[in-house]
Amino acid sequence: MNGEVLFPVIETKSQVLQDQAAAADRLRKELNKKNTVLINLMASPGAGKTTTLVRTLRELKDRYRIGVIEADADGDEDARIIAKTGVRVVQVHTGGSCHMDVKMTEQGLEALEAIGTEALDVIFLENVGNLVCPAEFDVGAQLKVMLLSTPEGHDKPWKYPLMFQVSDCLLVNKMDVAEIFSFDLEEMKKGAAMQNPGLQIIPVSAVTGAGYPEWISWLTQRIESVREGNA
Amino acid sequence: MNGEVLFPVIETKSQVLQDQAAAADRLRKELNKKNTVLINLMASPGAGKTTTLVRTLRELKDRYRIGVIEADADGDEDARIIAKTGVRVVQVHTGGSCHMDVKMTEQGLEALEAIGTEALDVIFLENVGNLVCPAEFDVGAQLKVMLLSTPEGHDKPWKYPLMFQVSDCLLVNKMDVAEIFSFDLEEMKKGAAMQNPGLQIIPVSAVTGAGYPEWISWLTQRIESVREGNA
Repeated sequence: MNGEVLFPVIETKSQVLQDQAAAADRLRKELNKKNTVLINLMASPGAGKTTTLVRTLRELKDRYRIGVIEADADGDEDARIIAKTGVRVVQVHTGGSCHMDVKMTEQGLEALEAIGTEALDVIFLENVGNLVCPAEFDVGAQLKVMLLSTPEGHDKPWKYPLMFQVSDCLLVNKMDVAEIFSFDLEEMKKGAAMQNPGLQIIPVSAVTGAGYPEWISWLTQRIESVREGNA
Repeated sequence: MNGEVLFPVIETKSQVLQDQAAAADRLRKELNKKNTVLINLMASPGAGKTTTLVRTLRELKDRYRIGVIEADADGDEDARIIAKTGVRVVQVHTGGSCHMDVKMTEQGLEALEAIGTEALDVIFLENVGNLVCPAEFDVGAQLKVMLLSTPEGHDKPWKYPLMFQVSDCLLVNKMDVAEIFSFDLEEMKKGAAMQNPGLQIIPVSAVTGAGYPEWISWLTQRIESVREGNA
């Protein structure tokens, strides 16, 4: 896992903010002014965030100028994978922190701005792999998307309710192997609807591409609606 | 997910302790004095902690008096599953916290003590599903076991180094589906050894029972060695 450096690696420090919510709102307003849509992508480790992102970038990169912030406690494997798609990417190290906060996100955004000349339309933040803490931190994103992969099991809405409550869209990933894990989609949907009746649920497979027309259509509609709201 | 209550459900409050490490050491000494071995089981959501526990309990329950503390942000699905094995169990709610700390563990231990008459030889703490934060909190356990499941991918030692560093044993679970996910065991072992050369790595499947003779043998040896140290 060595080699030439292809992207900035930022060592962030989480900061205790008196008012995280106010800071998140300030950042969101700033992003709206720039007509940039920030999407906070959250999931457990290994749910398929990076693979989902690669497939999504392939579908969107001719339509939007896109940037990616990769957040991890350590390492840069995911940023290397994203760099290969040709999209602008920075690696953020959270210094062991299990989530991104507004301050850290701002540092990622600044680094992303510093390595390019054109303004970005859409920025994906791939949050730290964690189904608990990232749900508690509003980073200033206009859209929150969570992934749940079928090997994790259909009982997750009952055990990690907050993530389901705060998300706009739930991608149920690895549907191609759902049967092997006796993953009951309807049971999971029941739990998810209890936590968040407005949650958009789209079963997908980042490997086979199943569900991607629906996901890309939902995503572009939401991106457009954020951008129209700014107009 | 309703029905009769089969076990206590404890709502804990995490407490900021000036000296978490000292408190953990105090609890560990107390457990040693009682000749009770506390095992902290940690993994991502859906890695198979509960299924692993059920299979492990089946192998050990004629040999030891066993208790289980189930820790979750919410819900009681896992405690219900454990209760069916006949082993003493309590459900701990972390109040949204993404990990257990010493104080919360002590509350779980007290609740476990309160519902039985016999002293326990072995207590498993099934920590909150999270590959980041639980690694930072010494809860006073004599043994730390982590699970990594093959669908999560072989790149995890680089991205979540601390969990690999603090654990005594790594169970690589869901080996029966490793091929489907192109999981490279040797590559994962390389990363794990970089983080922690002394880490015991045992590939298993909680579904097929593969690797269980080795795991049970390692575990009983370590339990005996803790208990002999106390004698």
